[in-house]
Amino acid sequence: MAPTDRFVSENTFYVRYAETDAMGITHHSTYIIYFEEARSHYSRVLGASYADFERSGYWLTVGEVHARYMVPTRYAQLIAARCWLEDLRSRTVTFGYEIADAETGQVCVSGYSKHVCIDHSGHVSHVPAEWAAAMKSGLPGSEK
Amino acid sequence: MAPTDRFVSENTFYVRYAETDAMGITHHSTYIIYFEEARSHYSRVLGASYADFERSGYWLTVGEVHARYMVPTRYAQLIAARCWLEDLRSRTVTFGYEIADAETGQVCVSGYSKHVCIDHSGHVSHVPAEWAAAMKSGLPGSEK
Amino acid sequence: MAPTDRFVSENTFYVRYAETDAMGITHHSTYIIYFEEARSHYSRVLGASYADFERSGYWLTVGEVHARYMVPTRYAQLIAARCWLEDLRSRTVTFGYEIADAETGQVCVSGYSKHVCIDHSGHVSHVPAEWAAAMKSGLPGSEK
Amino acid sequence: MAPTDRFVSENTFYVRYAETDAMGITHHSTYIIYFEEARSHYSRVLGASYADFERSGYWLTVGEVHARYMVPTRYAQLIAARCWLEDLRSRTVTFGYEIADAETGQVCVSGYSKHVCIDHSGHVSHVPAEWAAAMKSGLPGSEK
Repeated sequence: MAPTDRFVSENTFYVRYAETDAMGITHHSTYIIYFEEARSHYSRVLGASYADFERSGYWLTVGEVHARYMVPTRYAQLIAARCWLEDLRSRTVTFGYEIADAETGQVCVSGYSKHVCIDHSGHVSHVPAEWAAAMKSGLPGSEK
Repeated sequence: MAPTDRFVSENTFYVRYAETDAMGITHHSTYIIYFEEARSHYSRVLGASYADFERSGYWLTVGEVHARYMVPTRYAQLIAARCWLEDLRSRTVTFGYEIADAETGQVCVSGYSKHVCIDHSGHVSHVPAEWAAAMKSGLPGSEK
Repeated sequence: MAPTDRFVSENTFYVRYAETDAMGITHHSTYIIYFEEARSHYSRVLGASYADFERSGYWLTVGEVHARYMVPTRYAQLIAARCWLEDLRSRTVTFGYEIADAETGQVCVSGYSKHVCIDHSGHVSHVPAEWAAAMKSGLPGSEK
Repeated sequence: MAPTDRFVSENTFYVRYAETDAMGITHHSTYIIYFEEARSHYSRVLGASYADFERSGYWLTVGEVHARYMVPTRYAQLIAARCWLEDLRSRTVTFGYEIADAETGQVCVSGYSKHVCIDHSGHVSHVPAEWAAAMKSGLPGSEK
């Protein structure tokens, strides 16, 4: 379940037809993309967009992804994609996710992803201070 | 350009990272999915959702798709996906599309798709009257 | 690493351009699809295709997916997608995966997925005996 | 239909589950990716891989795509993706495509794509001579 002690971003959108599969449900790989869009939204809302982060010379590579599927979703269902910061260290970041039905609130998929900060030459790097500060504003004890 | 004599739906969303490619731009196949989501939105706005259309026993199969690419888009760009009805006959429907930058208004991609109505046993069918009426409410001369 | 005590299927294919992202590498969600194609191949090779499994009235829903990303891959790289059976119980199946560079052998991504067998009315079901037998022929002690 | 007066490349692969949709068939956007993979294969077979083309400082941007859908395909169906050169001018290239059932030979989808050669600074450029020569070896009158 999404934590209650920190900022949880939420963006809503409809399941696209192309995202469904022959079982008639949203294909499981789609949620990995929903996770990614949820963390884009998280950083956008905290004023530190990932697009700017990239332009400043860094990438957050994906080291690990995990998803647990509880309830299927379907075409045209309104989805709430939630994201929060699990952990931010000098060179790594972990996000948590929850994909829910936006109308009933039922949680359908949960997951997390772990990232390593690299610079554009491919070397592991410290997460830049300004971006880290914005991300951390979502953690417990911050004013967010 | 989008027509000015009929209803043009517009939904906005951000380009997702997964939709980009190694050229650093939105992959051209992505816009075919944006077209589809734009026509989902068109029917939703006109009160005749495609999800309900399907549940009532029909499908609109895709017979033809065309896209013209003018300006690339990029990750996190805010997109306006526009859709309108080009033509609706007893068994076929044609939609037009325009994908624009939501902030500058610049049109980036345009296209159309042609569809044939079939029932769930796979036979070509008349477009159901109620759904056709809702779609046509976007045509010139309607009150929409 | 892929186990040495059981059958490991391997299919090879090239990374598609559409599967890359703006980092210039294969997007991390792509590997979830490679995993799926690898398990399609596993069952195909063992003579119990998943397409037939579905047609016989069952689905293997995905309950959990995990991927660990070690080395990026790129457009046109020849990939070896390996799959093996981790575990098969009366109602659940677990597959392991390894995505490697087909030429150098370097392992780039590893993962697993857990599945629950349901019938087409959505009820949890026993894995059908014939299909289970084919799958198990890849386990240690089988003649495969 | 694929032309008989010139080289037509063909690569075969299975429809992936993730490529299907809730109609139970291969989603129409998938074929745009099959087209792309078919032209990757075309250039690979003619000894002038697109990956090398890119590394030499150029891109073939997509200016237009068209697809005509005749027969649906399904999960695990073996596909033959055919590609040929329609036209090659100093700055533009047009490819034709045909997606067929590899076993029955039935043509399911046809299409074309038009491309403009640009350099990595984004300027329209002449198609590099060596790559153009390799592509043209597939045209009528060449020895291919």
